[in-house]
Amino acid sequence: MDGVDQLAPERKKAQFDVDEMKIVWAGSRHAFQVSDRIARLVASDPAFRKDNRAMLSRKELFKNTLRKAAYAWKRIIELRLSGGFNELRTLVLFLSIGMFVPAIKGQGTDEQHQKWLPLAYKMEIIGCYAQTELGHGSNVQGLETTATFDPQTDEFVIHSPTLTSSKWWPGGLGKASTHAVVYARLITDGQDHGVNGFIVQLRSLEDHSPHPGITIGDIGMKFGNGAYNTMDNGVLRFEHVRIPRNQMLMRVSQVTREGKYVQSNVPRQLLYGTMVYVRQTIVADASCALSRAVCIATRYSAVRRQFGSKNGGPETQVIDYKTQQNRLFPLLASAYAFRFVGEWLKWLYTDVTQRLQANDFSTLPEAHACTAGLKSLTTTATADGIEECRKLCGGHGYLCSSGLPELFAVYVPACTYEGDNIVLLLQVARFLMKTVSQLGYGNMPVGTTTYMGRAEQLMQCHCGVQKAEDWLNPSAILEAFEARAIRMSVACAQNLSKFTNQEEGFAELAADLVEAAVAHCQLIVVSKFIEKLQQDIPGKGVKPILEILCHIYALHLVHKHLGDFVSTGCITAKQASLANEQLRSLYSQVRPNAIALVDAYNYTDHYLGSVLGRYDGNVYPKLYEEAWKDPLNDSVVPDGYHEYIRPLLKQQLRNARL
Amino acid sequence: MDGVDQLAPERKKAQFDVDEMKIVWAGSRHAFQVSDRIARLVASDPAFRKDNRAMLSRKELFKNTLRKAAYAWKRIIELRLSGGFNELRTLVLFLSIGMFVPAIKGQGTDEQHQKWLPLAYKMEIIGCYAQTELGHGSNVQGLETTATFDPQTDEFVIHSPTLTSSKWWPGGLGKASTHAVVYARLITDGQDHGVNGFIVQLRSLEDHSPHPGITIGDIGMKFGNGAYNTMDNGVLRFEHVRIPRNQMLMRVSQVTREGKYVQSNVPRQLLYGTMVYVRQTIVADASCALSRAVCIATRYSAVRRQFGSKNGGPETQVIDYKTQQNRLFPLLASAYAFRFVGEWLKWLYTDVTQRLQANDFSTLPEAHACTAGLKSLTTTATADGIEECRKLCGGHGYLCSSGLPELFAVYVPACTYEGDNIVLLLQVARFLMKTVSQLGYGNMPVGTTTYMGRAEQLMQCHCGVQKAEDWLNPSAILEAFEARAIRMSVACAQNLSKFTNQEEGFAELAADLVEAAVAHCQLIVVSKFIEKLQQDIPGKGVKPILEILCHIYALHLVHKHLGDFVSTGCITAKQASLANEQLRSLYSQVRPNAIALVDAYNYTDHYLGSVLGRYDGNVYPKLYEEAWKDPLNDSVVPDGYHEYIRPLLKQQLRNARL
Repeated sequence: MDGVDQLAPERKKAQFDVDEMKIVWAGSRHAFQVSDRIARLVASDPAFRKDNRAMLSRKELFKNTLRKAAYAWKRIIELRLSGGFNELRTLVLFLSIGMFVPAIKGQGTDEQHQKWLPLAYKMEIIGCYAQTELGHGSNVQGLETTATFDPQTDEFVIHSPTLTSSKWWPGGLGKASTHAVVYARLITDGQDHGVNGFIVQLRSLEDHSPHPGITIGDIGMKFGNGAYNTMDNGVLRFEHVRIPRNQMLMRVSQVTREGKYVQSNVPRQLLYGTMVYVRQTIVADASCALSRAVCIATRYSAVRRQFGSKNGGPETQVIDYKTQQNRLFPLLASAYAFRFVGEWLKWLYTDVTQRLQANDFSTLPEAHACTAGLKSLTTTATADGIEECRKLCGGHGYLCSSGLPELFAVYVPACTYEGDNIVLLLQVARFLMKTVSQLGYGNMPVGTTTYMGRAEQLMQCHCGVQKAEDWLNPSAILEAFEARAIRMSVACAQNLSKFTNQEEGFAELAADLVEAAVAHCQLIVVSKFIEKLQQDIPGKGVKPILEILCHIYALHLVHKHLGDFVSTGCITAKQASLANEQLRSLYSQVRPNAIALVDAYNYTDHYLGSVLGRYDGNVYPKLYEEAWKDPLNDSVVPDGYHEYIRPLLKQQLRNARL
Repeated sequence: MDGVDQLAPERKKAQFDVDEMKIVWAGSRHAFQVSDRIARLVASDPAFRKDNRAMLSRKELFKNTLRKAAYAWKRIIELRLSGGFNELRTLVLFLSIGMFVPAIKGQGTDEQHQKWLPLAYKMEIIGCYAQTELGHGSNVQGLETTATFDPQTDEFVIHSPTLTSSKWWPGGLGKASTHAVVYARLITDGQDHGVNGFIVQLRSLEDHSPHPGITIGDIGMKFGNGAYNTMDNGVLRFEHVRIPRNQMLMRVSQVTREGKYVQSNVPRQLLYGTMVYVRQTIVADASCALSRAVCIATRYSAVRRQFGSKNGGPETQVIDYKTQQNRLFPLLASAYAFRFVGEWLKWLYTDVTQRLQANDFSTLPEAHACTAGLKSLTTTATADGIEECRKLCGGHGYLCSSGLPELFAVYVPACTYEGDNIVLLLQVARFLMKTVSQLGYGNMPVGTTTYMGRAEQLMQCHCGVQKAEDWLNPSAILEAFEARAIRMSVACAQNLSKFTNQEEGFAELAADLVEAAVAHCQLIVVSKFIEKLQQDIPGKGVKPILEILCHIYALHLVHKHLGDFVSTGCITAKQASLANEQLRSLYSQVRPNAIALVDAYNYTDHYLGSVLGRYDGNVYPKLYEEAWKDPLNDSVVPDGYHEYIRPLLKQQLRNARL
């Protein structure tokens, strides 16, 4: 059976050109070619095998990471790769490329760039980003580590004054890094100037031993078997550690030789640019992670058969059950939706950067709110979606060989890092409330909030849907999402206005505000999907199937958040029921294309790392084969039989030493 | 700091008698005393330590399980424990007590009981329940293993005819069990009589080697670090293995010496009794697992402070944020709700058993649907709830030392085993459709479907809520839930009637049917909570705080499923908004009692296994202490430095052998 493509009949059903879709997914023909080349390179190189990961001990896991990182770096040099070295990049991600370099780029002076960036790029130093502390994550302004200027020696003294000020979580910190950008309260002459970044050398470049006054270690095991246990998230304490003054990142504010604190004329908003960048990459990662899970669940759903055998024939493929489609296809559509909104965010970041360079800060608050909200929306949906895909694979999804437990464990921290998802939605809500409060004062909302300028119309419009097909009209969909978003924002604003203390009101109504923010963010994703479809998309049948996915994405949200839509009067119960009817019809249309739609991600079996998601669908023989690799199967009679099982069976426990 | 109870100020806020609540939670004073005694016994016994579990290799994990099981069994004998040996029981669960014994009890003859049960009870044999195969889980009738009667030798020949017929998943099978109840197709004289149970010896009782013709092993690593990797879920294949005829479980059907297949007059419905039993224990386990997670998240939410410092004072406890309350308190309420519905299910099982013994099968279909639905509802909510609790602990919830990753990984299979949750809801829906179709034909619905007898009234009623406090009226809540449930069922039935082929209609509308089933099951939980509160509950303030929890449970469901309630016209948008308002007020009322409410579970720190959930709230010193136990911290310079990091830093990779 092995070798035969079990899914070939499914692939024949596709009604669109898969190769063209691969290019749409990758973003461009060039991007497709680069990622395809790297993916095949990694998949064919035994040095990158990962199938044994679940069985390695912590020490082996980490050593394995070091080996792969060094090997990947070697290959990057040998192949003269740059820029788009997708998969390889992730292998060395924890070495400098992650956050250390962007921090220096964003907050360092030109001089600091010249000194530190080449060291990092060439891997002559390994840097990490030491912000989070044991006691402070979300509230960066509450960090406790201090950096006190000593004018006598022209140095800063970095110190951890409390237990909770211990740096905690930074990736790459525990064992690998030689340097860190450390965030600490800047203190000059007894005055606290708030949190700033400092470049601190942690370990000797000769023997890797920690510098005097530095306590450093790993914070211990995390969720999952492999997952982030391959990484050395670290703990770090400083006992009056001295660094030269010029290792404070001084782009935005400086300390002079005399110890005077000076704010530069570089606007602080520049710092938001980095945030927009980082969160934009997180949205792109969300579409990758979700599509991986969807690819596995979709292929396995076509292989797996259960119930419904007629006259002794084969049973029904589980992908043909409406309950399965109702859970799986919205996730398939979401992966595409997140891909396109991620693509648009990349453009947004370029746009913001250009404006910043021209000293135009006008779109920054909107861009910041938008990326924060989309980071929250896509990571939450992806984390939930991966787990849903695992459940869609039934019992076998619980096996590590399915790849899904690992994918989930690796992914979920995205809901917390770079801004807790609920905290971010509250920031979005704050921005929305501000926008609502300024309506009618001549400030026209920009970018993704443009629709709020039509508040009056949207507060009163009635959805014109009369039959199921009317839900295929993009303007009907858009209007419903816009009306829902503005009505929820306006309702919040009205309720807020009943409080004399605005902050109290904001705290009291926080849960409602979060929901209004979600409605706004979902509208962005829907509208960017629709915009994408207004572009020229070549390839037989590509655009029509994307339209189907776009409708599924929108209408499943209408159903999921029916309470919002109906209780704000945006749609009627009858129209909701028509949306459901249309959704069922869309599921039937997507069904024959399902396998081809996940093939279009162009993931290698190596990248997927899943027996259930194999391209050729030969799931059962491989599952059986994988099982025997477990160390427990080294012997037929298990270790522990003579000490524990035999005395139990022979009723000789009484005298046993256990 | 260690030793001081950081949460003492929180405990002082409680407005009810915690000791009385502990008894309510345990079910009775006696149950409390027994569980309290065992919990302390286990917690104080170093043989049961589990804090190092995340770092053990697969082989060590399993050996450790064997050691604990043998030790627990020894202690059970020494202490002459029986019946209620709660925690100890779970340690030996995988040995016979799980499903092997209930299967023999339910499907075996009196003779078979006499022969096999004492062997299992005394642990002279170790048995497992071998039902699921590689290719079949939910569809038990599709199992492929065969048991062919050979009249020549008076034996059955057990055989695995295909790869997919390999037994796959049974717990305890891979390494520990000596015997199994194997489910196989019974074949006599070339005729297939469907699936039946057979007792098969797998391994020698002398040296544990597998019997001839038997291939047996472990299926490999599963989700989580420790979790079910402590257990030997197994794979099993038969190559024409012979067993005596009297090892077929013959209570319901028999094969005579001549090979004649005979159905006994014992009704097949009896088998449902076992299912009701097993699922009833799963609901009880759900309340345990959810309450553990809630206890951890609640205590940590009171310890953790972030933002909101005024004039340099301490920051705000995160439990005081409405967004935190809005996610946490409904879960706190759910844990209590599931506890009480579980208690009621225990009664239902006794009732069903008594009726079965009196040959009264009238309530069985309703009891079966009810337990199936509640198994699905509570396990889904608990799995999601544990992960939500983990997220509520922010970044630190991702550490194994928080206990939450392990709890999640151990718990999630409950959504799949003993009936996939979606498949179960479809069974409930089928029962509801049948009940609806019989309305008006004189068949009065019984038990939890009694409300359907008032369909006419419920289809037309209007919710009378006019102000937020009206939502505290139990009959207003009940009526809203009843009206929603019946209207969703009736809508499904009406849509079904449009199909000429009922089965096609059922398949097409499956997603709607699942939602109708959920609505019915939620009504059951709400109504059982309300019934509980109508009982006499002693203890200062105990009943009032339980009333608050009951209201939170109900109203958060109204909000979560707002689309159902509003689109079926059960409540208006205005009433929905009043429910939200009331919910916020209820959160404020539960807040001072939150810590005491989780203390009432009476969980030891050992049982919780969580640094974040410590009784004394000394979270940070313990987190710091735990970190250093990781094997990666055995040395300051990590293993792999010389091979990989140094060559990287020194730009000497080119010649390195990696």
